[in-house]
Amino acid sequence: MPDPSRRKFLTHVGKATPATMSGAGIISKLSAMLEKSIFIHHVYFWLKDPNSETDRSKLLEGLNLLSKVKTIRKFYIGKPANTNRSVIDRSYALSWLAFFDNPADQDSYQVDPIHLKFVEDYGHLWSKVVVYDSVDV
Amino acid sequence: MPDPSRRKFLTHVGKATPATMSGAGIISKLSAMLEKSIFIHHVYFWLKDPNSETDRSKLLEGLNLLSKVKTIRKFYIGKPANTNRSVIDRSYALSWLAFFDNPADQDSYQVDPIHLKFVEDYGHLWSKVVVYDSVDV
Repeated sequence: MPDPSRRKFLTHVGKATPATMSGAGIISKLSAMLEKSIFIHHVYFWLKDPNSETDRSKLLEGLNLLSKVKTIRKFYIGKPANTNRSVIDRSYALSWLAFFDNPADQDSYQVDPIHLKFVEDYGHLWSKVVVYDSVDV
Repeated sequence: MPDPSRRKFLTHVGKATPATMSGAGIISKLSAMLEKSIFIHHVYFWLKDPNSETDRSKLLEGLNLLSKVKTIRKFYIGKPANTNRSVIDRSYALSWLAFFDNPADQDSYQVDPIHLKFVEDYGHLWSKVVVYDSVDV
């Protein structure tokens, strides 16, 4: 999907780059600027049957398949830790934390066939999903 | 704080290490095994005054100070992304994502003087905090 803001950004960097800057210098500068737009997608899943070890394993299998989406830079599949204070929500079954290089990559992940198939094949397992999407301040 | 299970783990690795393995090899093997116990601490903050840009900046200042705790391996300070579906909670002001090498490191972070001072100096700013702690499945 075309992203006009990114095109503009790349054009701008191109124009601002001094002729004396090395290729490696440009790449390092670009990486640093792109790092600023990191996108963090954290999802918490509650199972319809919270006591089913089978359903939990199935969802875990699904998340491992989901991790194959190409725009995912890094991912972590978690379960609640043993910590237990009043502010901690440890009622979920599994958490899915995925890092993207930028918001556009997360947009494309949402409509990626692998993601659509994940929802189709495993969506019957969960009763609730809460998503927190965040970007650098 | 002594952690008997970790002591046992280190002893076990020591015994299992072939005499021919280099120091670097042992460190790399240990790192890989410890990576398995990664601890993810994700906190979402809601401000008492959600419209105050000043309070948001103050909390951001506090989180940057908090990031100096030595056991934090990596951290990200986030704000809600532009994504907006029914399952997404984008009502928080700031998010604080911290990675630790293991649960014990997060325990020590909780009582670290820098963390205690953060709560003392900036705690009046927020009305609600939700924490999700997770470990590798």
